[in-house]
Amino acid sequence: MADYQAPLRDMRFVMYDVFRADEQWSLWPALNQTIDRETADAILEEAAKLAAKTIAPLNRPGDEQGCQWDNGEVTTPAGYKEAYRLFSEGGWNGLGGNPDYGGMGMPKVLAAQFDEMACSASLAFTLYPSLGAGACLAIDAHASDDLKATYMPPIYSGQWTGTMCLTESHAGSDLGIIRTKALDNGDGSYAITGTKIFITGGEHDLSENIIHLVLAKLPDAPAGPKGISLFLIPKFLVNPDGSLGERNTLSCGAIEKKMGIHGSATCVMNFDGAKGYLVGEVNKGLNAMFTMMNYERLHVGIQGLGASEMSYQRALAYARDRRQGRSASSAQQTDTAADPLLVHGDIRRMLLNMKALNEAGRAFSTYVAMQLDIAKFSPDQQERDKANALAALLTPVVKAFLTDIGLDSCIVGQQVLGGHGYIREWGQEQLVRDVRITQIYEGTNGIQALDLLGRKIFQNDGAYLGLLLNDIRRSTKPEDEFAETLLNTVDQLEKLTARLLSQSRRDPDAINAAGVDYLTALAYVCYGWMWLSISKAAAHKLASCGSDPAWLAAKQVTARHYFTRLLPRFHSAAAAALAGTGELFALSEDQF
Amino acid sequence: MADYQAPLRDMRFVMYDVFRADEQWSLWPALNQTIDRETADAILEEAAKLAAKTIAPLNRPGDEQGCQWDNGEVTTPAGYKEAYRLFSEGGWNGLGGNPDYGGMGMPKVLAAQFDEMACSASLAFTLYPSLGAGACLAIDAHASDDLKATYMPPIYSGQWTGTMCLTESHAGSDLGIIRTKALDNGDGSYAITGTKIFITGGEHDLSENIIHLVLAKLPDAPAGPKGISLFLIPKFLVNPDGSLGERNTLSCGAIEKKMGIHGSATCVMNFDGAKGYLVGEVNKGLNAMFTMMNYERLHVGIQGLGASEMSYQRALAYARDRRQGRSASSAQQTDTAADPLLVHGDIRRMLLNMKALNEAGRAFSTYVAMQLDIAKFSPDQQERDKANALAALLTPVVKAFLTDIGLDSCIVGQQVLGGHGYIREWGQEQLVRDVRITQIYEGTNGIQALDLLGRKIFQNDGAYLGLLLNDIRRSTKPEDEFAETLLNTVDQLEKLTARLLSQSRRDPDAINAAGVDYLTALAYVCYGWMWLSISKAAAHKLASCGSDPAWLAAKQVTARHYFTRLLPRFHSAAAAALAGTGELFALSEDQF
Repeated sequence: MADYQAPLRDMRFVMYDVFRADEQWSLWPALNQTIDRETADAILEEAAKLAAKTIAPLNRPGDEQGCQWDNGEVTTPAGYKEAYRLFSEGGWNGLGGNPDYGGMGMPKVLAAQFDEMACSASLAFTLYPSLGAGACLAIDAHASDDLKATYMPPIYSGQWTGTMCLTESHAGSDLGIIRTKALDNGDGSYAITGTKIFITGGEHDLSENIIHLVLAKLPDAPAGPKGISLFLIPKFLVNPDGSLGERNTLSCGAIEKKMGIHGSATCVMNFDGAKGYLVGEVNKGLNAMFTMMNYERLHVGIQGLGASEMSYQRALAYARDRRQGRSASSAQQTDTAADPLLVHGDIRRMLLNMKALNEAGRAFSTYVAMQLDIAKFSPDQQERDKANALAALLTPVVKAFLTDIGLDSCIVGQQVLGGHGYIREWGQEQLVRDVRITQIYEGTNGIQALDLLGRKIFQNDGAYLGLLLNDIRRSTKPEDEFAETLLNTVDQLEKLTARLLSQSRRDPDAINAAGVDYLTALAYVCYGWMWLSISKAAAHKLASCGSDPAWLAAKQVTARHYFTRLLPRFHSAAAAALAGTGELFALSEDQF
Repeated sequence: MADYQAPLRDMRFVMYDVFRADEQWSLWPALNQTIDRETADAILEEAAKLAAKTIAPLNRPGDEQGCQWDNGEVTTPAGYKEAYRLFSEGGWNGLGGNPDYGGMGMPKVLAAQFDEMACSASLAFTLYPSLGAGACLAIDAHASDDLKATYMPPIYSGQWTGTMCLTESHAGSDLGIIRTKALDNGDGSYAITGTKIFITGGEHDLSENIIHLVLAKLPDAPAGPKGISLFLIPKFLVNPDGSLGERNTLSCGAIEKKMGIHGSATCVMNFDGAKGYLVGEVNKGLNAMFTMMNYERLHVGIQGLGASEMSYQRALAYARDRRQGRSASSAQQTDTAADPLLVHGDIRRMLLNMKALNEAGRAFSTYVAMQLDIAKFSPDQQERDKANALAALLTPVVKAFLTDIGLDSCIVGQQVLGGHGYIREWGQEQLVRDVRITQIYEGTNGIQALDLLGRKIFQNDGAYLGLLLNDIRRSTKPEDEFAETLLNTVDQLEKLTARLLSQSRRDPDAINAAGVDYLTALAYVCYGWMWLSISKAAAHKLASCGSDPAWLAAKQVTARHYFTRLLPRFHSAAAAALAGTGELFALSEDQF
């Protein structure tokens, strides 16, 4: 089985050559003392070691062993505890965290590369620390200073972990109908009662305390999503001096048996009058939770990318090593009975598809991370507003498309191994089982499409999308190799959007009917823009410093592969998005 | 969890209304005493009961329990033995078998419906009996009368089962480099030595004997595929009176831990001078094996369809039952907190995609089964030749496309269930894990694409394809609703084929580079033809007898859904197939 090797060269290329993040850092007062290229490179090197040497070796055995539930206690697979300790000691939990509360304050662009490495190494393991960082974002943005000071530093240090508790057995995509109740204790705390399901890391043995962010309703709350409040509920109550007090009245009732991510405990959590604290305003809980969810959605997209990168690395290693058949044009290695798989066109097609989509996915998620950094660090209000708009627009696209492509690529990577891809010992089948959840949790990809088309595009009459398309058009020069092809899809996307907007005014079902195909079409355009940007950055780098010519030349080849073989998928997705609601709603329930 | 219900109405519609199989049967001397519509319907009813009541209940527990290996013995999951006994007593092993040796002699069109039901009910279970029927085909076509008389009746009766032993650890897609050796014992038998891997049902506790068809090389055989012979090797040697004799020198060394089909034993088989008998001519073993492989390839395609149908049924049941959110146009059921999932456009899109592809897949596999029946039973030589050509052309398409779509549809069916789709108890994730193997075994789908483009199309300069396209054009009338759309893709497919043919003359890598995308493009055209045929048959049936109007109307809606939402995928596949070999072969091994 191939060992994981972090794609550091490509990560640096994307950060510095494609998006020039280091130049931005030096211009931002809040960052120019914190981070420069040298520091960032050192962090990436350390991250690569942690991922390859500490996390990756746990992935297969953790899948075989899984988590064990016994009377409310959850035991993680062997080795998880020690790895989590190393993870925490390295400060990785607080990498992008607020320095006022013990975070390292690093830009998201850098943290995104770390996230990818950790997810490539082991998705199941990485879920435990990943939720804490998101929880801190929500606490930081919405909670009282007291809650911040008490809860954020131990999460950043890794002593404590976080969860998000939204789903109930009858309420998944539809949070408006949750039944978990909160009663005001009259002392600044609340008593929360209800059962939440599918809670990642709801209980485990890695940290001293677990901090749950829980959606619940107050007795007099309005019906639906506008009556939901957010509560912070610790597993162990915290004394004024920060030490742990008594056990709160909450427990893990069971863990799920799942298709994959066996090392990650997916818990049923029972809150039985558990003591909690309001985060943000009463009945504005969904809004506060979205601070965490948007962060996690970007992370989930990167999970898809991480799995896909791992699948590519294993498939490539196998294709170099395994000998089957002869090259169609001529035997390549006549001293052996057969040539390596890599001589075959179809194997190369599969590998190049994966490569083209992974590298564009890395660029795209880094681009969105860059928007978050601009929104956070830029001194220019106008720049911040625009970046916020682009991040809002593209977060659902990253979440859905990188996970859809993640599954596809893991399946392709499994196919390269033939029968061995189906056997557990090779690890490719685990990637498929693990990555599959990313299309479902944090809002299914159908929900992401609704968010994109209904909220992020139509609620502002396409203004956010206009910013994106303007940027694509402005940065695409007529002399660029793929300019015409790309701009043609941009024009078509704009027309498609206008037609859907007009359809949706007549027919409210039009958004939901078109959403998923529309998101796919938009994403293929974005990936086209990424490849144009990568191609130009590679040409510029080759001309300016001349190093790594073979590696940079591969970028041009892969860009061409994307434009000729993959971008055409834009058209089939756009055609489907245009098909309207007629057939979809023509059948009665019995006619299905 | 939804119970399986065989789609009998659709199966009968496809057989009798779309393809008028019953009319054909009455015209064929070898069949008109054996089968008519009434008999066929009775067989289908019995098959549906067996699938739903005997096989389906084993599927989930069989997955959890799996097979156990202990010192060479394999124990199948609880209940398999009893179900296999009922399966055998019903005569299902010999459904399509040669009546001269105890088979029932039923047409493939009928057997294909049974295969689909059994695969929907449990893929893992159904693999045990399915290989025997294929083995008998190869024995019948190539072995001596003595071997036929000895081995075929007990396989048809279910007393014995069959396997195909091709793969070795270093030789999967490339059978030319197998190392298993056969030595002539000089008494009409051979001694076979070697290790075969990935042998489905190589060892188990369901039948008294297991008959292995094994590829091996004689000492003086030419190198490569032209030096391979086929041997019949029984687990227990057979006495002249048909009773079982001593145990042969072969054993099961291990079973694989796999992604899915846990109830099916995938065996490492060690042949240690095992006694075997030549099937067919020396060095013509691959040809003889292909008789079995082509049969199995159709079966594997139907496996994809069966899993996909099961996934659809469960997703539909869930979408009717589960309440999340409100209809975008208006709340449908105001007495409850939320509407059923089925009110949402995206849920309907997913279900209709599955429905459109399943029903076309059923028609398409039945069409290919029909060609096999014509080739076998028609008294007209010209008709037989044409049917043989069409079956040869389309067998790799059924195998690859129905399994590719099978996986996609199982993934979509899982998505409809959201988080519950990822949890084992709901069964949807098992379908994904089980069906995934169908794209890999019996020749990976990449190998199918090579077979289609390289052998079935280019080796006869497109003559077989010409037969198909002529039939499509001849049966499509200008007044048919989708005629223009369909004929447009037929024209494009023809041009694409001509361009690839010309490319491949200059560049032998062109076939392998284009194969998979070409197969996909061709399959979408075939499914379009199926939907045109279904649509016309439905209109005709409605006009002629007037029964089932709502069900028949749904066919028109689903046809429109296919042409507007799914057929556009033809264009993206065709564009990729046209992209050539340039980028694929531009990268050196290190540049990947």
